[in-house]
Amino acid sequence: MSMIVNRRDLDFLMYEVMDLDRLLAHPRYQDYDRDVISAVLDTAENIAEDKFLSCAAALDAHEPTFDGQKVRIMPEVKQALDTYAEAGFFAAAFDQTLGGLQMPFMVSSALGGLFTCANVGIASYFFLTQAAANMLAACGSPAQKALYLPPMLAGRWYGTMCLSEPQAGSSLSDIRTKATPVGDGRYRIEGSKMWISGGEQEISDNIIHMVLARLPDGPPGVKGLSLFLVPKFRVNADGSLGAKNNIALAGLNHKMGHRGTTNCLLNFGEQGDCFAELVGEPHQGLAAMFHMMNEARVGVGHGAVMSGLAGYLYSLDYARNRPQGRHPHEKDPTSPQVMIIEHADVKRLLMAQKAYVEGGLALVTYCAGLIDQQAVAEDQIERQRLSLLLEILTPVAKSWPAEYCLEANKYAIQVLGGYGYTRDYPVERFYRDNRLNHIHEGTHAIHGLDLLGRKVRMQDGAALAVLEAEIKKTAVEALERLDMVGYGEDLCRAFAALKDCARAVGRAGDMNRMLANATVYLDAFGHVVVAWMWLRQALVAGAALAEQPDHPDEDFYRGKLAACRYFYAHELPSVHAKFTLVASLDDSCLTMQDSWFTGR
Amino acid sequence: MSMIVNRRDLDFLMYEVMDLDRLLAHPRYQDYDRDVISAVLDTAENIAEDKFLSCAAALDAHEPTFDGQKVRIMPEVKQALDTYAEAGFFAAAFDQTLGGLQMPFMVSSALGGLFTCANVGIASYFFLTQAAANMLAACGSPAQKALYLPPMLAGRWYGTMCLSEPQAGSSLSDIRTKATPVGDGRYRIEGSKMWISGGEQEISDNIIHMVLARLPDGPPGVKGLSLFLVPKFRVNADGSLGAKNNIALAGLNHKMGHRGTTNCLLNFGEQGDCFAELVGEPHQGLAAMFHMMNEARVGVGHGAVMSGLAGYLYSLDYARNRPQGRHPHEKDPTSPQVMIIEHADVKRLLMAQKAYVEGGLALVTYCAGLIDQQAVAEDQIERQRLSLLLEILTPVAKSWPAEYCLEANKYAIQVLGGYGYTRDYPVERFYRDNRLNHIHEGTHAIHGLDLLGRKVRMQDGAALAVLEAEIKKTAVEALERLDMVGYGEDLCRAFAALKDCARAVGRAGDMNRMLANATVYLDAFGHVVVAWMWLRQALVAGAALAEQPDHPDEDFYRGKLAACRYFYAHELPSVHAKFTLVASLDDSCLTMQDSWFTGR
Repeated sequence: MSMIVNRRDLDFLMYEVMDLDRLLAHPRYQDYDRDVISAVLDTAENIAEDKFLSCAAALDAHEPTFDGQKVRIMPEVKQALDTYAEAGFFAAAFDQTLGGLQMPFMVSSALGGLFTCANVGIASYFFLTQAAANMLAACGSPAQKALYLPPMLAGRWYGTMCLSEPQAGSSLSDIRTKATPVGDGRYRIEGSKMWISGGEQEISDNIIHMVLARLPDGPPGVKGLSLFLVPKFRVNADGSLGAKNNIALAGLNHKMGHRGTTNCLLNFGEQGDCFAELVGEPHQGLAAMFHMMNEARVGVGHGAVMSGLAGYLYSLDYARNRPQGRHPHEKDPTSPQVMIIEHADVKRLLMAQKAYVEGGLALVTYCAGLIDQQAVAEDQIERQRLSLLLEILTPVAKSWPAEYCLEANKYAIQVLGGYGYTRDYPVERFYRDNRLNHIHEGTHAIHGLDLLGRKVRMQDGAALAVLEAEIKKTAVEALERLDMVGYGEDLCRAFAALKDCARAVGRAGDMNRMLANATVYLDAFGHVVVAWMWLRQALVAGAALAEQPDHPDEDFYRGKLAACRYFYAHELPSVHAKFTLVASLDDSCLTMQDSWFTGR
Repeated sequence: MSMIVNRRDLDFLMYEVMDLDRLLAHPRYQDYDRDVISAVLDTAENIAEDKFLSCAAALDAHEPTFDGQKVRIMPEVKQALDTYAEAGFFAAAFDQTLGGLQMPFMVSSALGGLFTCANVGIASYFFLTQAAANMLAACGSPAQKALYLPPMLAGRWYGTMCLSEPQAGSSLSDIRTKATPVGDGRYRIEGSKMWISGGEQEISDNIIHMVLARLPDGPPGVKGLSLFLVPKFRVNADGSLGAKNNIALAGLNHKMGHRGTTNCLLNFGEQGDCFAELVGEPHQGLAAMFHMMNEARVGVGHGAVMSGLAGYLYSLDYARNRPQGRHPHEKDPTSPQVMIIEHADVKRLLMAQKAYVEGGLALVTYCAGLIDQQAVAEDQIERQRLSLLLEILTPVAKSWPAEYCLEANKYAIQVLGGYGYTRDYPVERFYRDNRLNHIHEGTHAIHGLDLLGRKVRMQDGAALAVLEAEIKKTAVEALERLDMVGYGEDLCRAFAALKDCARAVGRAGDMNRMLANATVYLDAFGHVVVAWMWLRQALVAGAALAEQPDHPDEDFYRGKLAACRYFYAHELPSVHAKFTLVASLDDSCLTMQDSWFTGR
């Protein structure tokens, strides 16, 4: 059993649930069919196991160090990334016109996920590079694209995203980094950027930092932010490297997890000129960032799912092979012990993991599919519909997996018991890694505000209406099947509560009060969406078994049906208390006073 | 603001809520009054801050090492423990007849909690010593007590509990360690013991291991386990130390948290004689263990609360001093940033922490009070009533704080954002430390089975009836007060659901099915109990403010009222879906088949 992927589940989601075949019929993806994709994933799986998984524990134990001069990283990291680059994977999702492989995003995401599951510390380097290249592809000038994209897509130069500063994390409007025009079209950058993953390393020949900074004539707040391209080594017109560009590594951050990736405080232009190029129009930096935000956020959700999957697969394997204890009805202590997978609570811990991880994977795969469909949509109306769906699902796809796949990791530790709590087994590492995903790319709170304050209300509720139409389609399908009718009813009831709640909040008037429990709303909203994802999976599995009761994949489909049943029995009912709370405009937290917390 | 304790809250719980004064009126506690206790806690707080808190981060980063010969531990650990010993605290809870200080358990627990909060890695050494001494005091012979207790209560010798083995954690009936009578009253021990905290160290002059082992004529299963005292250095009749006793440290376990305490695999009698004394009667080892189990388990719950408190106090202080962002209605980016404690979701994260931590502290303080009341109970009926209450609350007091104070630690990280995820701040350490508490002293699953399979049914539901009477008393008090009537009703409704659920499960007949969702029951049961604890606190706070509206502690009381309101609005409603699930005898996990998980 692979410890990084269930390929049967990937195929199920992509082809049986999300209808990837239909997408592949489009000329844009004419180079791809099931065989090609399978071969690509085979290659990726092999590299991920050989080069990434093999050093994951060691990399966690031996994080990069900085001696004041140089960053030192285990040599296995460069070897792994070079192999990934040789396979052409840096370019997987990019258009052929840019030198990319033009893979469907659904496939390139699945591919990337194999590496995250195997070794998130290494995978972060290429994810950030791809994100930076993506932004350049969307907003850069033809000259910038010609100069910078080829080495980035080849994996010779890496990229970073430089938004946060020590005093400005969630609050981008307080970014202070300055960009001053030099006169020759270049800009001089001065300021500090915090939490820069991959901000310094000696693996790639150059590092291309995408930096948010403020022009002298920029208005205050986010409207005054512009996007700049700042290379570690200046780049000559012919693409050769020039002098170092005065970006100083002020220090590495030492995190609880994600220890394999350098995470840096960088000082730009502190001791000399740090030159930059403007990307896109002045003061349009945030728009440029938002351009790529949905993909990046779905990517974070995908990463959370993959850490969850790593724990699920490992703890499942352990539970199948660890004997201990007996069934409750077995009173004879000399009877043989059973494998712990036979214990009801271990089954529950594994089932919850399956429900969270495979439910989360369905969600991020669905979102990836929306991005693909946008790329081939025939008309503006359809593109708009897809965009609305993606807009409203993005905060969920970013946040729900972080919350529940971390919970899955907590359960994976529990399956292993005391052993799971030691560093001799990998499950505690996944748990540490996954805790980051509530924080970066917008905290939980930010996404709650985004969902309840913006997305459910946008265009007079248009996004919510589009989502409702999609969910209703699935519910109607279920209502027509005897074995699924209960799920269909439960889903409709839950969605009605979700909608009523949004309406009640919308009537409140007082913005502070409306948004006081936005994070609770985000949480419950996510459960409804994932319940929908489970019903979609159950419908497919049920249909497959109805058509062919002795299906060779019967066990797989039964697992999908069982997990759906679990989700509707154990998980979905929890949403009603939450929607009731949010709809009541409860202000028990909002009215709390600082001095009341400890009474002094 | 102290980072390890809110003394006002301790006083509130002990005197205002749990009526410690009444206990102090008993002759057994004649040496104690409020002033004495306050002075003792002052001393403890000072030592905990000076010697324990000061090296907590360093100890986590520099865990003990074993070079094959010797265990090396930071010298600060011995200094801290010696100071603790000099203050007489090893003996705090022990009877004066044994040389103890005969403190109420409620007070000695509070005292111990200060040290756990400051540095759990060091505190574990004295907790285990106290637990071992406690067991010896309860089950040892007069000669054993005379020989071993004085140096243990003086903190010169430490103790351990040796139950688990590599193949037997939760399943004690599979313990293999053998004890063979030598003929002179001594026994020879052979076997391996796993997860032994404090199992080897060079801090104390000797280590007294309390070991579960099997005599040659012992029946299989737990009924064949006997308790043995096994010293690291053999002890002569005059108390002087003899030769080493052939206990080999096979290796240290390296954990995610609790890194300050050595945690060992010990081999007894592998390379020579390892002599032991029998403690209590043959084959009564488990009974001896159970004798001390309630205190130990409440102690684990207390520890979980303290790790939760550490995160709460730290993140509260951070939120009060970290500026970032503005209120939702403030659109001017040039307006000053607010402290993050002003953001609704940060308030929610802090409020949830307060509700979990102070709710958990109330629960373990209540349980400690039950132990105290047992010690002074006047008649058998009252002792029996107290014992039933403690029996049914123990699995809750052990498990609920582990679950929800870990959640509190997760929130503390969230308050600090990216900083909270780094090792430069202590909140990620508390989160790592606290994850152990779901596992040791009986896993969550074990306590679920204990609660639903045994405690709610014991003596024909007598324990549940006693608990109901206590909860009803509080509810009735609330129903008589206009401002609390809603809480009283909610609590009654939740308890009725809890009881109906137990009844429905009891009727099921099929043991496997009855217990399939026992962990879910444990979780919801805990929320009802903690809701009760919050209502008790709110009643006291409300009465204090009603009596004196301009009370100097008005802020403190308002905080209690607000947290109670939060708990009833945000937390308690979640129990109904859970009780409904458990009562339905849902078997969606139980019927899950191994091969369905991944379909292969």
